[in-house]
Amino acid sequence: MQARCPRGFVEWFDAFSEIGSTGDGGVDRMEATPANGAARRQLVAWMRETGLEVRVDRMGNIFGIAELAGPDAPLVMAGSHIDSQPFGGRYDGAYGVIAALAAATELKARFAGSEGAAKANLAVVAWTGEEGARFRTFLGSAAYVGRSDPDVELDRPDKDGVTAREALAAIGFLGKDAPPLFPSAYVELHVECGEMLETVGARLGIFRRWWGAHKIDIRFLGETSHTGPTPMARRRDALFAAARIIAVVRSMADEAPLALHTSVAKLIVEPNSQNAVPSAATLSVELRSADGDLIANCYRKLFEAIEAAAAEARVGYEIVRDDLRIPGTFSPELGAIAESVAASMGVKPVSADTIAGHDALMMSEVCPALMLTVPSRAGLCHHPDEWSDPADLQLGAAWLTGVLEELITR
Amino acid sequence: MQARCPRGFVEWFDAFSEIGSTGDGGVDRMEATPANGAARRQLVAWMRETGLEVRVDRMGNIFGIAELAGPDAPLVMAGSHIDSQPFGGRYDGAYGVIAALAAATELKARFAGSEGAAKANLAVVAWTGEEGARFRTFLGSAAYVGRSDPDVELDRPDKDGVTAREALAAIGFLGKDAPPLFPSAYVELHVECGEMLETVGARLGIFRRWWGAHKIDIRFLGETSHTGPTPMARRRDALFAAARIIAVVRSMADEAPLALHTSVAKLIVEPNSQNAVPSAATLSVELRSADGDLIANCYRKLFEAIEAAAAEARVGYEIVRDDLRIPGTFSPELGAIAESVAASMGVKPVSADTIAGHDALMMSEVCPALMLTVPSRAGLCHHPDEWSDPADLQLGAAWLTGVLEELITR
Repeated sequence: MQARCPRGFVEWFDAFSEIGSTGDGGVDRMEATPANGAARRQLVAWMRETGLEVRVDRMGNIFGIAELAGPDAPLVMAGSHIDSQPFGGRYDGAYGVIAALAAATELKARFAGSEGAAKANLAVVAWTGEEGARFRTFLGSAAYVGRSDPDVELDRPDKDGVTAREALAAIGFLGKDAPPLFPSAYVELHVECGEMLETVGARLGIFRRWWGAHKIDIRFLGETSHTGPTPMARRRDALFAAARIIAVVRSMADEAPLALHTSVAKLIVEPNSQNAVPSAATLSVELRSADGDLIANCYRKLFEAIEAAAAEARVGYEIVRDDLRIPGTFSPELGAIAESVAASMGVKPVSADTIAGHDALMMSEVCPALMLTVPSRAGLCHHPDEWSDPADLQLGAAWLTGVLEELITR
Repeated sequence: MQARCPRGFVEWFDAFSEIGSTGDGGVDRMEATPANGAARRQLVAWMRETGLEVRVDRMGNIFGIAELAGPDAPLVMAGSHIDSQPFGGRYDGAYGVIAALAAATELKARFAGSEGAAKANLAVVAWTGEEGARFRTFLGSAAYVGRSDPDVELDRPDKDGVTAREALAAIGFLGKDAPPLFPSAYVELHVECGEMLETVGARLGIFRRWWGAHKIDIRFLGETSHTGPTPMARRRDALFAAARIIAVVRSMADEAPLALHTSVAKLIVEPNSQNAVPSAATLSVELRSADGDLIANCYRKLFEAIEAAAAEARVGYEIVRDDLRIPGTFSPELGAIAESVAASMGVKPVSADTIAGHDALMMSEVCPALMLTVPSRAGLCHHPDEWSDPADLQLGAAWLTGVLEELITR
C-alpha cells in the first residue's frame, strides 16, 4: 500500500480554487450559477483527460468512473460537492472532490495492466447542491438515494423564481445519463468545519458520528395595535412570545454543555414598525446533538415553552416547519480500515463528530459510508477565511488514496 | 353661549372621509401622497368657500383665518392634522380639522356684523405630517414652534428617497405664505385613541396630561458563524442579547401596571439566515408613562440590562436613537373653560391622559394648549375599524365651538 499525495492534487486544487474566486481566499459558486457551471466544466474536462467515464444524471450529479475490475464488479465511490455558500470558502466540498479525482487518477494508472488486482471499480462523484444555499440541502445526493422526489425538487424555485431544473439546464448540466448503481462503499474527505482536530493537535480525523438536527420554524400570531395607548393587558405581542422562546432555546444548550448546540438565527417580525405591536413573529429554531434522546427531550420542552409563551403573550401559533435529522454513526468497519491505512502512514487519526451535514449522511442510507477529515483553522467554514494547512490537505489526499486502494483491492 | 353642532360638520366630515377611502371604513392618506393632496385641496376649497383667508407655509401647514377682531387682535387657533397612517382610520386627525373648520364657519357667521363682540381672531389649522408614517412625526407643528429646523426636515427622504420638500411640491403644497404668529391659545379636538372614556361611559373628555415617551434603538453587534459546529461558548449571538432586552422591557410594564406602557415592536436581524449566528440585531424600545421619574428609572434599568445582555451574549452594542419626550400637562386654565362650557351643555367631561402624541404637545411649548376628546370604540386607532359614535362626534364639535366662542370673546 502506498500513501503519497496523488499526482495532480495540488495543481488541480489550486487551479480549481480560482474558479469563482472572490479574491480574498474564498469562492462564490452557488449551485448552478455561471461560476458553478465553469467549475463543473473544468471538473468534467479533467475527468475526461484522465480517462474516467463521465456521466451526468438528471439531478446534475457528475460521476467519473474508472472501470478497474470489469462491468459487473462492485463499485467504490468517493467525492463530495463543488457548490459553495455565497462568498464561502474554497475547501468546503471541493477538497473532497478534487482529492477523489486525484486518487482515482493515481489508482487508475497504478492498476493499469494489473488485471485482477482490483476487485471493484471506482467512481468520483460531485453531488449537486449540497449547501442548500439556493435550493434544498443535499439536492443531488438525497435524490440519488431515493430520499427525495427528483421531479418535485427540480421544480422548486430559488428566491428569484428560477427552478433547479431551469438553472441546471442553463449551465448545461441537466443530464440524461443513468447514475451508477449504489456502491458497496462511499468515502467522503472533507475539511472539518469544526475545531476538534485543531484543539487536540491532530492532522487526521475520522467522523464516527453525525449530529442530529431538529429544525422547527414557529409562527406566533398576535394582533397589531398602537404601542402607545393600547393597555398592556390587551396586547397580543407576537415578538414577546418569540423572545421567550429564544431565551428558552439558549438555556437548553446551557444545561447540556458541549452535548447540545441550539440557535435561533432567523426571526421575521410583522409589521415591524416601531409604533405597531407585532402581529406576527416567525422564528427558526435549531436543536443539534449526537444524542437523539437529548434532542427529543428538548423538542418536548420547546413545545411546553411555546404553549407557555403563547399563553403569556395572548397569541396563537403555528408550526411552519418541523424537520428532524436523526443522529447516526458512520460505518465502523470502514473506520477501522481508515485507521489501519493511517497507521501504515505513521499517523494516528482522532475520532470526531460532524455537526454540519454532508452528502455522506445521505449515502449512509444505501451503503457503508466513511468520512475522513483534516483540520480547519479555528473551525471556520462558510467564510472566505476558511483555511486548512496545505500539508494537511496533501496528507488527507494521500490517506484517501490509500483507503480507496484498500477498498478496491480487498 | 350656544352649543349645537356647527352647520356643515356632518356633511363635510362624511365627504372628507371619502377622500383616500380604503372602502372598509378607513382611509389611506399618508402625508403628501396623491390622496393627501386631494384632501388638502378639498379643505382649502371649503375654507375659501366659507370666507377664511388661506395660508400655506413652507412646511405645507394649512391655515384658514377668520379675522373677527381686526388685524392686531390676538389669535385663537384650533385644528389637528389630515394625514393618516397607511390604511388608517378616518377619524384620527381629520375629525379635529373638520370640526374646527365648521366651528370657525359657524362663529364667523355668528359674529358678522357684531363689531367688537370678538376680541380675538380664529385660525383653523391642518398640520403637515403629524403621523410620521412617511417622514418624522410632527413634521409641520414641530417646525412651526421652532423645535425642528425646517430645511433639515424638508430634505429628509422617505424610504423611497423622496424628500418631504419634493413630495409637498409634487402635490402643490410647498407653500410660500408666512404662517400666523403664535396664538394666545390652541385647542385640538381628537378622538381618544384610548379606551378610558368608553370604560367609564363618558361622552366627552379633557386630556389633562400627556404621557412621556422614551424611544431607544439599540444595535447589538456580534459575529456570524455556522449555527451547527460553532461551540456555544464561542458564539457572539446578537439576537440572543436582543431577546433578553425584549423580556426585560416587558417585565418593567408588568411591575408598574397601568402606569407604564412598554414595547419592542421593531427588530432587524442580520444576516437573518437560519444557519448563521446573528451578527447584528437592532431593536426599538419604547417606555411610555405620565410619570417622568418612572421613565427615568426604567431607562436606567434598561441600560443595566443592555450591559448584562451584551456581556452574556459576548456582543457589543451601540445606541442608534435616544429620543425622550418628557411628560407634561395641558393648560389647567383652558381645561377649566372647557369644563364650564360642557356644563352649560349639560355634560360632565372626564379627565384623561393622552398616551399617543398630538400636535397639541408641540403647541404647548409656545402657548396654553387644550385637548378635547370623544370616545374611540375599543380604544382602536390606526386601523380601518377605528370608530366613534356620530352623536359623540357632533357633541364634541359643538363643545369645540362653544370653547372657541368663549376664547375669542373673553
